[in-house]
Amino acid sequence: MIVLGIDPGTANTGFGIVERRAGRLVALDGGVITTRPEAPMQNRLANIHRRVCELLDEHLVTVIAMEDIYFGRNASSAFAVGQARGVVMLAAGQRRMSCVSYTPQQVKHAVCGSGRADKDQVGRMVQVLLSLEAPPRPDHAADALAIAICHVNGAPHAAAVAESSVVPGSRELEELADYRRLA
Amino acid sequence: MIVLGIDPGTANTGFGIVERRAGRLVALDGGVITTRPEAPMQNRLANIHRRVCELLDEHLVTVIAMEDIYFGRNASSAFAVGQARGVVMLAAGQRRMSCVSYTPQQVKHAVCGSGRADKDQVGRMVQVLLSLEAPPRPDHAADALAIAICHVNGAPHAAAVAESSVVPGSRELEELADYRRLA
Repeated sequence: MIVLGIDPGTANTGFGIVERRAGRLVALDGGVITTRPEAPMQNRLANIHRRVCELLDEHLVTVIAMEDIYFGRNASSAFAVGQARGVVMLAAGQRRMSCVSYTPQQVKHAVCGSGRADKDQVGRMVQVLLSLEAPPRPDHAADALAIAICHVNGAPHAAAVAESSVVPGSRELEELADYRRLA
Repeated sequence: MIVLGIDPGTANTGFGIVERRAGRLVALDGGVITTRPEAPMQNRLANIHRRVCELLDEHLVTVIAMEDIYFGRNASSAFAVGQARGVVMLAAGQRRMSCVSYTPQQVKHAVCGSGRADKDQVGRMVQVLLSLEAPPRPDHAADALAIAICHVNGAPHAAAVAESSVVPGSRELEELADYRRLA
């Protein structure tokens, strides 16, 4: 299983590709797709979609894992992130690939053992779990790698929430609490 | 100018294609792209994107006009509509076409002369302006045709809000109030 983790946004879309090899997690790629704020939105979305397609094909990715946004944010920002997320999901749909969603809390649980971990903690654990020399930078890339790790380590559970944008309730979060020990 | 009007949604995306010929408005196509709720979201988005691409290429569309959602709705719904809107905008971006946004109030102003017109009024005016035998059905198709009419009749103004998701303030709405007389 080769997972593309995505932290979607119109200005910055973090990406991280993780594979499990003989029980070890390996980072194949990671970074940020940036688009120019002054460009028309449709061109920015086309750039995000094209780059995601390149990553899927180059690394023979088998599943996309994405972060659900926190719906408490304002509708305007949800709308913008939704647009970026839509073109990433489209890249999966065009290949009939699976596309899985996790809440930020689930991702933090999976890599740090706590849904309340801060960004530094997430960065340090991503570094440890992927045997990197330093925490990945910038934060969007670290977040995307964390999302990919969350799926690689939690795939059996993920099937339950796969292919939907449903935000699981607290029961599912409880079930995720032990994922870190599997890493 | 051949305009594809879109009323985006993940379950139902209304579309309507309008061209101005010798001062008359002509409807070239119109309908609804429906997707199955039980299908994975990425496949539904892929269906919407593929169908929009077919419409653009079949009718030699030159610009896409879309309805902005009302940001007062909840963030969850904004997020879902944003995903559908994203893949429609992507189809424009992949062809380096313009993509223009109008609020529901602007569209109603443009076809009915009032931002408060109801659905029946919009349907009747779309029928009149496009010389159809009956109001277009279903509502999503009528809305999409209204959006296309709004752009065909208001293109000079539209340039000011083109290629952004900015919701214009009341001043712009005032400027739109006379559009119907141009039809």
